[in-house]
Amino acid sequence: MNPPASRPLHRVLILNGPNLNQLGKREPEIYGSTTLATIETLCRKHAQTHGLTMTFQQSNHEGVLIDAIQNSSDEALIINAAALTHQSIALLDSLRAFTGFILEVHLSNIYKREPYRRHSYISEAADGLICGLGAQGYLLALDAVAHHLNESPKEKAHV
Amino acid sequence: MNPPASRPLHRVLILNGPNLNQLGKREPEIYGSTTLATIETLCRKHAQTHGLTMTFQQSNHEGVLIDAIQNSSDEALIINAAALTHQSIALLDSLRAFTGFILEVHLSNIYKREPYRRHSYISEAADGLICGLGAQGYLLALDAVAHHLNESPKEKAHV
Amino acid sequence: MNPPASRPLHRVLILNGPNLNQLGKREPEIYGSTTLATIETLCRKHAQTHGLTMTFQQSNHEGVLIDAIQNSSDEALIINAAALTHQSIALLDSLRAFTGFILEVHLSNIYKREPYRRHSYISEAADGLICGLGAQGYLLALDAVAHHLNESPKEKAHV
Amino acid sequence: MNPPASRPLHRVLILNGPNLNQLGKREPEIYGSTTLATIETLCRKHAQTHGLTMTFQQSNHEGVLIDAIQNSSDEALIINAAALTHQSIALLDSLRAFTGFILEVHLSNIYKREPYRRHSYISEAADGLICGLGAQGYLLALDAVAHHLNESPKEKAHV
Amino acid sequence: MNPPASRPLHRVLILNGPNLNQLGKREPEIYGSTTLATIETLCRKHAQTHGLTMTFQQSNHEGVLIDAIQNSSDEALIINAAALTHQSIALLDSLRAFTGFILEVHLSNIYKREPYRRHSYISEAADGLICGLGAQGYLLALDAVAHHLNESPKEKAHV
Amino acid sequence: MNPPASRPLHRVLILNGPNLNQLGKREPEIYGSTTLATIETLCRKHAQTHGLTMTFQQSNHEGVLIDAIQNSSDEALIINAAALTHQSIALLDSLRAFTGFILEVHLSNIYKREPYRRHSYISEAADGLICGLGAQGYLLALDAVAHHLNESPKEKAHV
Amino acid sequence: MNPPASRPLHRVLILNGPNLNQLGKREPEIYGSTTLATIETLCRKHAQTHGLTMTFQQSNHEGVLIDAIQNSSDEALIINAAALTHQSIALLDSLRAFTGFILEVHLSNIYKREPYRRHSYISEAADGLICGLGAQGYLLALDAVAHHLNESPKEKAHV
Amino acid sequence: MNPPASRPLHRVLILNGPNLNQLGKREPEIYGSTTLATIETLCRKHAQTHGLTMTFQQSNHEGVLIDAIQNSSDEALIINAAALTHQSIALLDSLRAFTGFILEVHLSNIYKREPYRRHSYISEAADGLICGLGAQGYLLALDAVAHHLNESPKEKAHV
Amino acid sequence: MNPPASRPLHRVLILNGPNLNQLGKREPEIYGSTTLATIETLCRKHAQTHGLTMTFQQSNHEGVLIDAIQNSSDEALIINAAALTHQSIALLDSLRAFTGFILEVHLSNIYKREPYRRHSYISEAADGLICGLGAQGYLLALDAVAHHLNESPKEKAHV
Amino acid sequence: MNPPASRPLHRVLILNGPNLNQLGKREPEIYGSTTLATIETLCRKHAQTHGLTMTFQQSNHEGVLIDAIQNSSDEALIINAAALTHQSIALLDSLRAFTGFILEVHLSNIYKREPYRRHSYISEAADGLICGLGAQGYLLALDAVAHHLNESPKEKAHV
Amino acid sequence: MNPPASRPLHRVLILNGPNLNQLGKREPEIYGSTTLATIETLCRKHAQTHGLTMTFQQSNHEGVLIDAIQNSSDEALIINAAALTHQSIALLDSLRAFTGFILEVHLSNIYKREPYRRHSYISEAADGLICGLGAQGYLLALDAVAHHLNESPKEKAHV
Amino acid sequence: MNPPASRPLHRVLILNGPNLNQLGKREPEIYGSTTLATIETLCRKHAQTHGLTMTFQQSNHEGVLIDAIQNSSDEALIINAAALTHQSIALLDSLRAFTGFILEVHLSNIYKREPYRRHSYISEAADGLICGLGAQGYLLALDAVAHHLNESPKEKAHV
Repeated sequence: MNPPASRPLHRVLILNGPNLNQLGKREPEIYGSTTLATIETLCRKHAQTHGLTMTFQQSNHEGVLIDAIQNSSDEALIINAAALTHQSIALLDSLRAFTGFILEVHLSNIYKREPYRRHSYISEAADGLICGLGAQGYLLALDAVAHHLNESPKEKAHV
Repeated sequence: MNPPASRPLHRVLILNGPNLNQLGKREPEIYGSTTLATIETLCRKHAQTHGLTMTFQQSNHEGVLIDAIQNSSDEALIINAAALTHQSIALLDSLRAFTGFILEVHLSNIYKREPYRRHSYISEAADGLICGLGAQGYLLALDAVAHHLNESPKEKAHV
Repeated sequence: MNPPASRPLHRVLILNGPNLNQLGKREPEIYGSTTLATIETLCRKHAQTHGLTMTFQQSNHEGVLIDAIQNSSDEALIINAAALTHQSIALLDSLRAFTGFILEVHLSNIYKREPYRRHSYISEAADGLICGLGAQGYLLALDAVAHHLNESPKEKAHV
Repeated sequence: MNPPASRPLHRVLILNGPNLNQLGKREPEIYGSTTLATIETLCRKHAQTHGLTMTFQQSNHEGVLIDAIQNSSDEALIINAAALTHQSIALLDSLRAFTGFILEVHLSNIYKREPYRRHSYISEAADGLICGLGAQGYLLALDAVAHHLNESPKEKAHV
Repeated sequence: MNPPASRPLHRVLILNGPNLNQLGKREPEIYGSTTLATIETLCRKHAQTHGLTMTFQQSNHEGVLIDAIQNSSDEALIINAAALTHQSIALLDSLRAFTGFILEVHLSNIYKREPYRRHSYISEAADGLICGLGAQGYLLALDAVAHHLNESPKEKAHV
Repeated sequence: MNPPASRPLHRVLILNGPNLNQLGKREPEIYGSTTLATIETLCRKHAQTHGLTMTFQQSNHEGVLIDAIQNSSDEALIINAAALTHQSIALLDSLRAFTGFILEVHLSNIYKREPYRRHSYISEAADGLICGLGAQGYLLALDAVAHHLNESPKEKAHV
Repeated sequence: MNPPASRPLHRVLILNGPNLNQLGKREPEIYGSTTLATIETLCRKHAQTHGLTMTFQQSNHEGVLIDAIQNSSDEALIINAAALTHQSIALLDSLRAFTGFILEVHLSNIYKREPYRRHSYISEAADGLICGLGAQGYLLALDAVAHHLNESPKEKAHV
Repeated sequence: MNPPASRPLHRVLILNGPNLNQLGKREPEIYGSTTLATIETLCRKHAQTHGLTMTFQQSNHEGVLIDAIQNSSDEALIINAAALTHQSIALLDSLRAFTGFILEVHLSNIYKREPYRRHSYISEAADGLICGLGAQGYLLALDAVAHHLNESPKEKAHV
Repeated sequence: MNPPASRPLHRVLILNGPNLNQLGKREPEIYGSTTLATIETLCRKHAQTHGLTMTFQQSNHEGVLIDAIQNSSDEALIINAAALTHQSIALLDSLRAFTGFILEVHLSNIYKREPYRRHSYISEAADGLICGLGAQGYLLALDAVAHHLNESPKEKAHV
Repeated sequence: MNPPASRPLHRVLILNGPNLNQLGKREPEIYGSTTLATIETLCRKHAQTHGLTMTFQQSNHEGVLIDAIQNSSDEALIINAAALTHQSIALLDSLRAFTGFILEVHLSNIYKREPYRRHSYISEAADGLICGLGAQGYLLALDAVAHHLNESPKEKAHV
Repeated sequence: MNPPASRPLHRVLILNGPNLNQLGKREPEIYGSTTLATIETLCRKHAQTHGLTMTFQQSNHEGVLIDAIQNSSDEALIINAAALTHQSIALLDSLRAFTGFILEVHLSNIYKREPYRRHSYISEAADGLICGLGAQGYLLALDAVAHHLNESPKEKAHV
Repeated sequence: MNPPASRPLHRVLILNGPNLNQLGKREPEIYGSTTLATIETLCRKHAQTHGLTMTFQQSNHEGVLIDAIQNSSDEALIINAAALTHQSIALLDSLRAFTGFILEVHLSNIYKREPYRRHSYISEAADGLICGLGAQGYLLALDAVAHHLNESPKEKAHV
């Protein structure tokens, strides 16, 4: 699963939505003590093993997230849009204009939570979805990105 | 990510619902030429690298799937319930009585398909969900199972 | 409430749907340690006191349950369809063709549980419903069956 | 099923909602000729065989029914709330404050009648439900009450 | 339209629901200065011209209205149930047991008011409905009652 | 209730929608043998006793009914729009432009019929509604029209 | 399947709703080049083989279609109401008054098209439905009409 | 309509869902005395006149029906899925993978029955639908199959 | 915030709906040990500090509460309608005829409770709403009443 | 924006639905005194400045409007379908068969009016929509038509 | 249509919501190669011909758009709120406080797109709406603004 | 109600959402002339009387409000989220992580306004709600905060 040595590095952007910066700081009895900084570190190491150049960003501002997607020249995007998942058509529109591979990630399984968390606008534009696996979900997403970027075009057409 | 040498092997059951046995045989222009047998082979190899004992089963019969879940003594279950995902409370009930780790997998991203495929009874009982990543989704699910079974209890409580 | 000595024995079929065979085996802290076998024994004794010949059956397969109803020549049917209660029009159709007395039973009070358990297709065909009373509900159902089969036709018309 | 001779008598309240006082008086071709007075008599006899002290009350006034529940010091309540079943949150609230065993009874099977009769606020607070069995349903409810009050605490936890 | 001289007098009950006793006392700029007492007087005179014996009653208590319907031996009922129109199944049930002719009356046209006033439980049991015509609606209802009670049985079957 | 001798005649238009021309011709066991022609004759006589000039029209064509309303210079309109009641916003718009008094009439009580007959666009524009009283409903509507046209302006404001 | 020689001819009316006159003229890549005139010719030949007298009519006007149904003295009606299928209660009412055999036909399978085409008011009155079979559906409908009109009354009761 | 003598025989599978094996055995006053065996005989004769090789199957088990569709190498499928029509996405999925011509048949007109029978998952995959015509519907379906299999490809494109 | 010495006393009515008389008596672990009598005492003291004459009333009967509102000549009304909040249009109508200042109070935050408690008919007529603050909510309501009654008319228009 | 002198004239049809012929005649305080004749005159002048040949038509009959669309050989259609906007699938179907440019116009902003005016079947077939701008909307529509018909095909593909 | 020479210049603000800055840059096969800069240039020229002073702004941030509306002293506003159209009550509130003329513009016809794009909060505050006409829609909006600002107050009242 | 002299000062944050900065500036006939600055001044004075340290902030940007909540170390939060009340799950999530006392305030009674203003995401996290009391509502909220922070822990548990 390691990238071929001679190939240029692939680039991936990991975007995190509102309140994810609070992770691990408050209510540790619920969310554990893993902070977003820890997740970033885990991702950075994991990306390196796949030979991926990774950008990691969080914002509480919908507009900032849209700006980031628009300005990205990355080949893949891993997005945990948090609460905006369920409410932002604007974010969806920016994802639709993104030409790379898109993976939606959530720490919890949103489909077993409150009714208003059971609809995702992000899914309309995402290639795949991983949820309910905590920080591990980010690492699996990086695996999927690496797999996708490294497989031959012919294979891609048939997955 | 390799299991400690001395620890006994963990067991995982992979269950596939109705019509998945047709995979790769019909409409290859849509679903590609990967058959369920190929997925089973890929999974078996991948499970071995994680030191997991894997059982792989498919049925078009809801009752057979429920029997399989009830009779399983596996520590983890990866389930692609196909059409039953959206309609079988009976399957959900059998999952609720399953005490191990449960991962829901779908080849396609069901949340961008027909409205009647956007609800999953399975999710009510599943720990995590991976969809839209084709056969690769099964392998990531095995990674997640291995990660879950090998991490310390203390960590589990906080993911 | 004892049946007249000279009258031939009445026959009753007790049908149990998916996952009820798990009763008492898993999650005893929730469902208690009463198994379906125990319920069957309790019912058999109770049926005898009413002079009823009882058949007791469980299946995880909708088709098997329908076959059982179609093949039955019993005068009364006590059915705990479990999850199929909420989803099987096919079961309803077979009940509609059953000419005897039909009682719907549930261990828990389904009308105070999840929304998707608050609709019963079985009720469209059932004469009566007993739920929320655990194993005791089966015995009360047998009482009701005995009462119904033993009362005079004239009384039946006015209940 | 007879109560132990030395144990003090258990008390049960049977409450009947609007229009049940009309039973048997009007439209006998539909409801039969059994009056509420007859049901009361049947219940009273049946309660005695169980060693239960029974109070039997009917009112067309929601407030009177709530007062009765609040003032009751009975250990069990059998309630046929009639039309208020489907509409009175106030009645539900008074039931929620009632600490004893609660059984909901209906003469007809409300779940095969008009749509507006297929929801019960009472069920939110009731332990069990018996419906569709006419006057016999009241007697079965008394059986269930007797069974519940006489069983050991340990058993209760697991039903 | 006058009743035959020799025939015994027909009896009609006019029932008025909650808050109708306030008519004409408050907010005269909206409801005018006609009080319920005035409507009663108008009705009494009009009933006399039809040879009808009329009872006229108002209550803010649902139970009192149900009692009145149950105790009535009148051949016709004109009912303006006010707010209970939209909410009382108990009232509907008492009307269903009433064997005479039933007319539903409203001062305003409830079908052009707030959404929650556009459903009437009363209509399920009423033979006819007159609304939007103010006090005049009561008089037309009396005309309809007189017409109905005086026409030959053969005619009634075909209206 | 007779009109003052010296006052000029008031004019009323009675409009009947699709299929009402079939009245009494087919299915007499359901609708009786009263034809629309009979209703017209009854109305004409009744209008004369009120000193009203009456026009009576029926059409199966929505457009013809709208034309009739637009071209009318009548002071009052009695409309039985039949099936168009539930479906024609175009008819509603023409009624909204009509400056006279509008009464909606139906032979049957539409609010106890099929769900799709329980909404009336006509009601949004009608002053009053009479339904469920058969042919008699037309005559009561004429009474209401006469009452309305003959009462003093001051009274009108407060009904 | 040929009619008995001595029996008088049965009569059937085939009605076509709005825009069906455009068939084959516009968008031939979608609807093919079969015109309504061709369908009429095919039907006429097919009706003759069954010994049926056929009338064939099309209109864009709901009122004209209703008039045709009312004036028909045919024993059977084949109706393709096109867009009015989904919207005309007036058409439904005229069909309900039609005493003959009614078949609903659609060229396309309306139940796999837009949501607003998945409800048919016509079906409430139709004996049978054939859709999705193009012009062939008309011919099968004629077969069904012939079968129905020629079978013995006793058979009819049990189909 | 007869098949050309030299052409090889076309094959058609007729599948029947749950409870159809009960046809004619119970409730003959409702469904008549025609059994499924009789329908099979009628179909077999009719298929022969069209030169079609027919397989005829019934099952109460959803899984068995799916297996049959998957294993079929027939060129056309006539399916009366009975209650599964309204509930089985699994059956729909197997139909979607079936490459031949598909006709949905129902004995009764499901679109004038209970609301829960007015939606068909089968229709999403069926080319055509025939319902409400009893056993005759099967024969018309065979006519349609024969017509479809025998017409030239060019014609098919435009129907 | 003290009222001017020379001004006559303002009057306020505090109404409490069904089951509030049970407050503090049952389930103290949920509702605490504060009784309605204690709340009344707290309110009475607080009203005095504002120079308000207070009436305090509770009833389980909707009709009694409506009577109280109709008979009130108070300038302000504080109402905790309990369960009737969500169900009584009759209560709403009586509030609409009340010409004084109306405040809706709830002990708990009804908008974070069961769905059927998240709609208030009372709000349609209330000037303001205070909920979720327990007994303290009553005192704040009295503050608001005092503030409202004492502020100049000009100020009122702009709040 | 003037059309090239040598090019042949483009043709546009302006269709107006039910009740638009009443414009300016009734309720001038609401709709102003601009009549449909005035709008026609304004449009005719404006069309001339664009070198467009214009046909202007109004009807209260859905069928007449459909006939007009079917018979039109115009290159563009401006349609204000009035009430039929919200209800006529038949009109939509005729628009779908129209091969030219289609603009939907409304005098008022239908999306801020009654709920039943907030859905347009016309929009399913229209290229563009202009509403809320009164008579001026018609002139802007003509501008858009002229712009569309005069721009080069290459430009059209990218607008 | 030119503004009077002596009158002071009117001011108009054109606001563009999220992702519109991407126009023409990505997916040119869908949206064409017209960029927002080109639209701005076209608008600026067109505004000049009308003697309008124009401000043109785009933002991906809801808050920035609200700030712009609040700070504007323009007499008219043309707004293409993009995805915020369907979701921002905050934007609607700021528009409600804007005292000038408001026009809603969309490049595509949002009423023939995905269901979640068929509701506009903006319309609640907008005077008019133009959609589906691409960049041309902006120019027509400027025409409408110029027409509105230049017409006499008397005319405005009646459009 | 004054805080004990020796206790350290409690801190409260008052947050105001989009458009509240416009208060009193526009549409004074609706909202009065009270500006947000005035409310801040009133709150500051009132907080001082309670010995509370108050921070007062307004923003049109959802992200800024979330940042403020995350960065706050205040013991209580009074929030008027304006339009975001009904739409921002992101804001709700930040409130859920806030460990202090939360009060929701609205100037108007949102539960008697437009349907889309009758749902509050804020309420899911708020302890209490005060609405419909204008600027006075802020002062009452401060009273509630002071009361809450100063009462003994034991009392808190039971309110």
